[in-house]
Amino acid sequence: MFTVTVRDHVMIAHSFRGEVFGPAQALHGATYVVDASFRGEELDPDGIVVDIGRAAAELRGVLAALNYRNLDDDPAFAGRNTTTEVVAKEIADRLADRVHAGALGEAARRLAGIAVSLKESHIASASYERAL
Amino acid sequence: MFTVTVRDHVMIAHSFRGEVFGPAQALHGATYVVDASFRGEELDPDGIVVDIGRAAAELRGVLAALNYRNLDDDPAFAGRNTTTEVVAKEIADRLADRVHAGALGEAARRLAGIAVSLKESHIASASYERAL
Amino acid sequence: MFTVTVRDHVMIAHSFRGEVFGPAQALHGATYVVDASFRGEELDPDGIVVDIGRAAAELRGVLAALNYRNLDDDPAFAGRNTTTEVVAKEIADRLADRVHAGALGEAARRLAGIAVSLKESHIASASYERAL
Amino acid sequence: MFTVTVRDHVMIAHSFRGEVFGPAQALHGATYVVDASFRGEELDPDGIVVDIGRAAAELRGVLAALNYRNLDDDPAFAGRNTTTEVVAKEIADRLADRVHAGALGEAARRLAGIAVSLKESHIASASYERAL
Amino acid sequence: MFTVTVRDHVMIAHSFRGEVFGPAQALHGATYVVDASFRGEELDPDGIVVDIGRAAAELRGVLAALNYRNLDDDPAFAGRNTTTEVVAKEIADRLADRVHAGALGEAARRLAGIAVSLKESHIASASYERAL
Amino acid sequence: MFTVTVRDHVMIAHSFRGEVFGPAQALHGATYVVDASFRGEELDPDGIVVDIGRAAAELRGVLAALNYRNLDDDPAFAGRNTTTEVVAKEIADRLADRVHAGALGEAARRLAGIAVSLKESHIASASYERAL
Repeated sequence: MFTVTVRDHVMIAHSFRGEVFGPAQALHGATYVVDASFRGEELDPDGIVVDIGRAAAELRGVLAALNYRNLDDDPAFAGRNTTTEVVAKEIADRLADRVHAGALGEAARRLAGIAVSLKESHIASASYERAL
Repeated sequence: MFTVTVRDHVMIAHSFRGEVFGPAQALHGATYVVDASFRGEELDPDGIVVDIGRAAAELRGVLAALNYRNLDDDPAFAGRNTTTEVVAKEIADRLADRVHAGALGEAARRLAGIAVSLKESHIASASYERAL
Repeated sequence: MFTVTVRDHVMIAHSFRGEVFGPAQALHGATYVVDASFRGEELDPDGIVVDIGRAAAELRGVLAALNYRNLDDDPAFAGRNTTTEVVAKEIADRLADRVHAGALGEAARRLAGIAVSLKESHIASASYERAL
Repeated sequence: MFTVTVRDHVMIAHSFRGEVFGPAQALHGATYVVDASFRGEELDPDGIVVDIGRAAAELRGVLAALNYRNLDDDPAFAGRNTTTEVVAKEIADRLADRVHAGALGEAARRLAGIAVSLKESHIASASYERAL
Repeated sequence: MFTVTVRDHVMIAHSFRGEVFGPAQALHGATYVVDASFRGEELDPDGIVVDIGRAAAELRGVLAALNYRNLDDDPAFAGRNTTTEVVAKEIADRLADRVHAGALGEAARRLAGIAVSLKESHIASASYERAL
Repeated sequence: MFTVTVRDHVMIAHSFRGEVFGPAQALHGATYVVDASFRGEELDPDGIVVDIGRAAAELRGVLAALNYRNLDDDPAFAGRNTTTEVVAKEIADRLADRVHAGALGEAARRLAGIAVSLKESHIASASYERAL
């Protein structure tokens, strides 16, 4: 199995609802350093899993819709806590939609899966992986 | 699959028995930078795999029993080399016990697995992963 | 010259005023991974520049006053943009006050300087250094 | 499952054929920071997955055959683009050959798999994993 | 003193002349992960040392002239070894020219100095710092 | 000013005397990831501050005398706590002796200074810098 990973980041504000979050129930924020991994069993004739330039561009596009925003105001997350887990899944699902739409090229349609990891600090991260 | 990872560290002394270890048969030590990962198929109603505060606290508790010690004197490892692999498994198993005991909350009982990675330097690490 | 550095982090929301900030004028947030460095020409009789436990505790205390907050609402920054540079200086100055107040011990009063570095992402950081 | 990982690096020149590579079709180069992971279900009587010294030495040996070279001139890659994916697989396969030849010791013959990750920059990497 | 640092990278081929370089006399390559630091005694009215967006854009522009190239063919380095030290100085000097030309804004003309660090692997780096 | 930095590591056991050290008064250990930096105002005719191969070899040699040892038994540190600060200075001084003895070559005698940084974990480090 091959995996190609590209890194970018996003800076957002948000708050959480639920006693489990303690002081994080207040409005605060985070930098998420995002690693998006594309997995496939085989390489295409050029010797790649995915066009890394396109992968980086699609990741940037997906993150641009979240960047410099207060996620509490984003309808996409209405009624949900935007925990690192939830945001990781949202990014992975949006990337999967881009793959299915052909934005990463025809070859990318054969990808086996996507994993998205968000580092929220030097000591905590969350990730979500799914099939394609 | 979701994964949440928290990082902490421990500083220990130990020695190894066996020619394979060469100069590491002498009493020496290590800083282990420890990443504990908790994996689950679903999020709870708060949108989390596990209460990250509790996860960090339980990891800290498990590491406190090892920290600032000479593992050669620790009965838990009697008759065993405290290689990075062995210590990784011990930490993972102790965290699993804490999960089963409910220390990470009721929702954590649904966790699918735990992985523990120990970086012993910038060029070497070992990990152990297990089901819950 | 000796330097001792301890790392911690803080997660905040804020917005910026000024066209130079472009989309960062909107309410967003950041994780700042903070490195606080204490510099001194000589070691004390114990062989340390500063009690690293106290240094870490004081850094944690200074960051606790900022953590999980919207800095736009913090009177300490009224009328100022809370850029990474500004927050680095504020943390350095508060740590300097703690040193002068004796919170890091008598020996720490001989420290030559403090530097505070804030990583806001994997590709951007700012720091401030000052004499004591 | 246990995993032991060792890190080393290699510095190579190469060029790519294919429009997908854009400016990387020109002769350029890369530092690959290489993580080789050895996975096994059980520890040997010494408490190790693999002799980490031997693992590091074999990785170094495999990389020495590539280091300080123009991969465009390496017959091993004739007719293929030496993408990060391709080089990761080549290193993994050569390490697997070394394991099968007994270079990592008899116990290593029980290893379950190998994974090789190449970081080509702070924002891009590729990996290949295979069974043994 | 304030410092703002932005990171980017460049992938180049080159060879060295001189016995001191051993096997690196052959054509090979490197990824340089480049940290460009801008230093100033004071913040401008917006609370910044330098417009970080402009700083990143200028660094990207300077690196674009080197990226995906064989530095042996670059007239700018004719008759010189393109060691990490030499490339660090070249990047710093080109950034200084951009500052003096006003490309980073009027306020940036008050900058005190620039430092450029190039990580060529996980175990080696070189940097050059200069006044402005 | 140019700086060249090489990284290596050492794994040691030790204990501390003094109440300030709390639980670290017990026998424990550490991995120190060591960065040795060599600074000089000018490059030699080959375009280097120092032969990086020799620098890495000398650092390895200096660390070999400490590696896999209990520093409590090392006469070089008799009567002193082997704090991270103390060990950083010892390594810097030993490297300086090697430079003065010509082990890094004649050109290295013109070096301006040395700095040695020891990371003892992901959250704590100490360094010592000195003139040559």
